[in-house]
Amino acid sequence: MAVYTEVTDDELAPLIADYGLGELLSYKGIAEGVENTNFLVHASKGTYILTLYERRVDPADLPFFLGLLQHLSERGISCPLPVRNRAGEMLTKVAGRTAAIMNFLEGVWPRRPRAVHCAAVGRALAELHLAGRAFPLKRRNALDLAGWHALFERFSSRADEIAPGLGNLIAYELAHLDRVWPKGLPGGVVHADLFPDNVFFIGDKLSGLIDFYFACNDAWAYDLAICLNAWCFEPDFSFNATKGRTLLAAYQSLRPLTAAEVTAFTTLARGAALRFLVTRAHDWLHTDAGALVKPHDPNAYVRRLRFHQEVESPSEYGLERPQ
Amino acid sequence: MAVYTEVTDDELAPLIADYGLGELLSYKGIAEGVENTNFLVHASKGTYILTLYERRVDPADLPFFLGLLQHLSERGISCPLPVRNRAGEMLTKVAGRTAAIMNFLEGVWPRRPRAVHCAAVGRALAELHLAGRAFPLKRRNALDLAGWHALFERFSSRADEIAPGLGNLIAYELAHLDRVWPKGLPGGVVHADLFPDNVFFIGDKLSGLIDFYFACNDAWAYDLAICLNAWCFEPDFSFNATKGRTLLAAYQSLRPLTAAEVTAFTTLARGAALRFLVTRAHDWLHTDAGALVKPHDPNAYVRRLRFHQEVESPSEYGLERPQ
Repeated sequence: MAVYTEVTDDELAPLIADYGLGELLSYKGIAEGVENTNFLVHASKGTYILTLYERRVDPADLPFFLGLLQHLSERGISCPLPVRNRAGEMLTKVAGRTAAIMNFLEGVWPRRPRAVHCAAVGRALAELHLAGRAFPLKRRNALDLAGWHALFERFSSRADEIAPGLGNLIAYELAHLDRVWPKGLPGGVVHADLFPDNVFFIGDKLSGLIDFYFACNDAWAYDLAICLNAWCFEPDFSFNATKGRTLLAAYQSLRPLTAAEVTAFTTLARGAALRFLVTRAHDWLHTDAGALVKPHDPNAYVRRLRFHQEVESPSEYGLERPQ
Repeated sequence: MAVYTEVTDDELAPLIADYGLGELLSYKGIAEGVENTNFLVHASKGTYILTLYERRVDPADLPFFLGLLQHLSERGISCPLPVRNRAGEMLTKVAGRTAAIMNFLEGVWPRRPRAVHCAAVGRALAELHLAGRAFPLKRRNALDLAGWHALFERFSSRADEIAPGLGNLIAYELAHLDRVWPKGLPGGVVHADLFPDNVFFIGDKLSGLIDFYFACNDAWAYDLAICLNAWCFEPDFSFNATKGRTLLAAYQSLRPLTAAEVTAFTTLARGAALRFLVTRAHDWLHTDAGALVKPHDPNAYVRRLRFHQEVESPSEYGLERPQ
């Protein structure tokens, strides 16, 4: 949680008018957003989110992110829709930061996801993948297998400060994935970070998806494997087979996996676990005690990775090879 | 800014229903509130603030604070109105904390107050004092002259770490105020912390007053002196006589000061400056580097105190003795 940058009323009120949103009624810095500063804005025309992009977002990526949100919104995906100002621009400057204003999505994220949530998110992920097919812009996944290697090199000598043997575990897994990582799987736009805190519900009904700032082009089934890791493990790190089966079936009700995707799924699940393990381990070792945002515990993904390493068949996730 | 305590959707949704506010649509921890954790809640019946009282608020004071808000709301003051749950209670428990839900007030606080804001706040303060007259509960001002002495004793040996000579300045001023502090001035309920961040405006129109957690019984003119300190000095610490005159005239348009209040005003202004100087100096020396809330700079109130020490007549604030 963090508000890195303050915004004055004298700056925001004319900006809201320039966006055609009427009069500024209130704005509150909200304690969400690891990467950016976000304000919840009430204006006479409606409720909006003002996002100030802090240094962790590359401005060169913003046309991809904002264009994608517009593209997906136009195709019926409930996600933040960037508002254009009178000049037709989606980006502006606020308090010295590049900034955007988006429609606010009502909804709360489920702190303890149940199977009903897993079903909804599986379906929404397939809808997102299908809706993104015609999006013309591309963004490479910086956190791909090569990216995990590069990140690990930055902390490998200190990895065992987190847990004894962690350096060996990551090195072993990277070497394994180097040998078996699949190529040529069906793909396109992926969210790449669809954790519970990025999926809103009103009651049990999914109301929206947020935080597309890791979105990129990659294998769709890898995105599904990220969701499986994020949604289908219990607080004690055990895999919940019911939730897994529910998530995968809901996804496949809209986009059935190919035989190649099913075969590769265990590898993708291992890769997805490793991706969050290496970023969390890196952040764990590089976050000041006084930081506004507390780092996530890498151990949750050590435990997931070890689970996937023991999986012998995709049927353990509830996946069957297509006939 | 701080969210000290997290609240789960599983806990909040039934609570919102129990308050008769309909379905929970969204809730966001907001980066405001030094003392408490606040969530901005959208429900199908409207917008609310959920406040979790953290350890700095004494639960024994809550009936005074919440009762006062209800009393003032009923008399036309725009302030948060506590909502009662189905059992008729204004207080509940959330995430292990005593908590309350209030109507949300639209408005933004002025980062750079102008005379138009000072006029509105002067009038609003007089309205508040008059509306509070019939409120039956009492609360002693813990931060009175005796309270400043007690607080200073806790850091006097380290005061000069903040600025050379600060210990002597505070000791001198306390001794002076011990001799001249007025007794028997008209009084009643005071806000005691009506800084710009506690006064909301929509455009130039005052829309509400918030944060009554220092409210207590004290001299009304002392509350006015707090406002003068908070609203009528420039960022370079110079006193803005136009703003001062505007604030005081607006207040007196509804409640003219008595001769005794005018005579005592310089003393009250010194006391008000000292009150924020001693709390800020204390917090400056007792806040961890990693704290979620950064302490205010005591120097802003050193400069104000030195200004008031040089004032020879209330006319320098724009006050004339009543005929």
